[in-house]
Amino acid sequence: MHPNSVRLLSAIAVVVGLFMAFSAGALAQSDPLSSWNDGAVKASITGFVARVTEDGGPDFVAPERRIAVFDNDGTLWSEQPIYFQFQFALDRIKAVAPEHPEWKDTEPYKSALAGDVQGLMAAGEKGLVEILEVTHAGMTTDEFSKTVADWLETARHPRFDRPYDQLVYQPQLELLAYLRANGFKTFIVSGGGVEFMRVFAERAYGIPPEQVVGSSGVVKFEMGADGKPVLIKEPKVEFVDDGPGKPVGINRFIGRRPIFAFGNSDGDQQMLEWTAAGDGARFMGIVHHTDAAREWAYDRQSHIGKLDKALDEGMARGWTIVDMKADWKVVYPPAP
Amino acid sequence: MHPNSVRLLSAIAVVVGLFMAFSAGALAQSDPLSSWNDGAVKASITGFVARVTEDGGPDFVAPERRIAVFDNDGTLWSEQPIYFQFQFALDRIKAVAPEHPEWKDTEPYKSALAGDVQGLMAAGEKGLVEILEVTHAGMTTDEFSKTVADWLETARHPRFDRPYDQLVYQPQLELLAYLRANGFKTFIVSGGGVEFMRVFAERAYGIPPEQVVGSSGVVKFEMGADGKPVLIKEPKVEFVDDGPGKPVGINRFIGRRPIFAFGNSDGDQQMLEWTAAGDGARFMGIVHHTDAAREWAYDRQSHIGKLDKALDEGMARGWTIVDMKADWKVVYPPAP
Repeated sequence: MHPNSVRLLSAIAVVVGLFMAFSAGALAQSDPLSSWNDGAVKASITGFVARVTEDGGPDFVAPERRIAVFDNDGTLWSEQPIYFQFQFALDRIKAVAPEHPEWKDTEPYKSALAGDVQGLMAAGEKGLVEILEVTHAGMTTDEFSKTVADWLETARHPRFDRPYDQLVYQPQLELLAYLRANGFKTFIVSGGGVEFMRVFAERAYGIPPEQVVGSSGVVKFEMGADGKPVLIKEPKVEFVDDGPGKPVGINRFIGRRPIFAFGNSDGDQQMLEWTAAGDGARFMGIVHHTDAAREWAYDRQSHIGKLDKALDEGMARGWTIVDMKADWKVVYPPAP
Repeated sequence: MHPNSVRLLSAIAVVVGLFMAFSAGALAQSDPLSSWNDGAVKASITGFVARVTEDGGPDFVAPERRIAVFDNDGTLWSEQPIYFQFQFALDRIKAVAPEHPEWKDTEPYKSALAGDVQGLMAAGEKGLVEILEVTHAGMTTDEFSKTVADWLETARHPRFDRPYDQLVYQPQLELLAYLRANGFKTFIVSGGGVEFMRVFAERAYGIPPEQVVGSSGVVKFEMGADGKPVLIKEPKVEFVDDGPGKPVGINRFIGRRPIFAFGNSDGDQQMLEWTAAGDGARFMGIVHHTDAAREWAYDRQSHIGKLDKALDEGMARGWTIVDMKADWKVVYPPAP
């Protein structure tokens, strides 16, 4: 080779080498889990991901089997002072109340319109179900999605004065992205309504509708008068994706056992057990709400997101318990 | 720049150019739908895909909205002389008959054991449901998957003497791959049992379990005596993913309206209508079984895969009707 060519190639090699060194440095500096404080919890996550993605390693898991499931309420976004979907239902009651003057004197509507949660609780489960049915049925699936989208646009959380879908956990957003970057397919498996969550899951979490598993009501196909078919939401519960329903929902919708599961309450216990019972490397995580200043602190005695038996089992079996106050640098993303 | 450097760069450019020209030639020669004969049907597929993937074009569809759904029986694999899943059930009856000596004298088992399909039909729907329940319930989900996998290993189709999961349509395998290469996410939406199909869908079609929608029975979570949870299949139908159930299943499992749907029978009519009723470019396809020599010829009068109303609607509305005999160069892939 001519000396000038050699010199040119050498120059190229130097430039390429410098570029690679710079990239490696940039990579080392950008921590994909930068909102997680260093410690045992963070290390349990990164250690697990390193093990199952190490080609040829003893714990390697093929990408198509890297199924990760997350509860939603209290695991990916907040659930206090009441489940956000229930707040949506109360707001809908108010919005359509002018069409129902009789509600002013009838429970559970009277309490709902007064924002009287204690009165609602007194109306019992039957009253709560009625609120959900009235606000979640008797319309097409498209119409329902639109009411949810409109609500997310306009409603504000009473404590933080932010849209509800901004009260998602920044560390969990990083974890979802980190898992996907490592070949995982991320799913929501939540007691919340599947059609409610699908409105914002893709935008908020990067999780597409077909990877959202949740509770659902009966839906009926009908041919419209204009020759266009519609799907009508009926006032009848079809499936409750909570507690023992979560492994059932996973089996029904995903058809594969997860290797990674994250929850925050006793309603997630069976999902965590089902994940733990598979062969090979497994990750089971629980968000423990310990941060009254930045979010909320609650567990064994809470009416919402009660964490009692699952906490005992998680501690006994060495699952990863996130101490929100200690493990998370920030809770919510900065306002956009 | 030194003349020698210029010469070196020119040489590199020539080599790169040759390589690119060669690649383009190779690409032009390898037709991704090579088992489809040229004509209006094939052009309707490639034309649709070209339109929805043309960045900036009037019919462009973002990749996350490129949802394609396929019926299974008669659309992706054969369904004659009886649905393959029903043959699986009959074979299971024979396999476990030694544990049930009373079956020899009791319908519908007597006919099932004799392979007497006419006798079975005489036993009516109740008898058929009993056969399905006995063979599809009373075991864990893992145990059921194993019986299906074993059956696929050992059973042979009576006419073609091949494993059932080799009787898939080569042109459709190419279509699935072609759609995926163009950013589509491919789903099965079938009246068949979801847990039956998931055993082979990934291997046979490249469709992972979480993209299979089908009929299902009730499944129950139970903690095993060894402290390991199991999912038990119960003898109770939960969801029938057929006819009007198909758009319901699409809404439940996928949560997005498809832009591309392929079926072959009246059981697919509502799925095709639901797909057609969306905004923007749409593709609706029907496999018409017209090839008694290579596969089967049946439509309006058939007990299996009856195609009557959907054929009328498809012709009236200009959907793509595949004439198997004319449009497909081959039906099945070569034996491996």
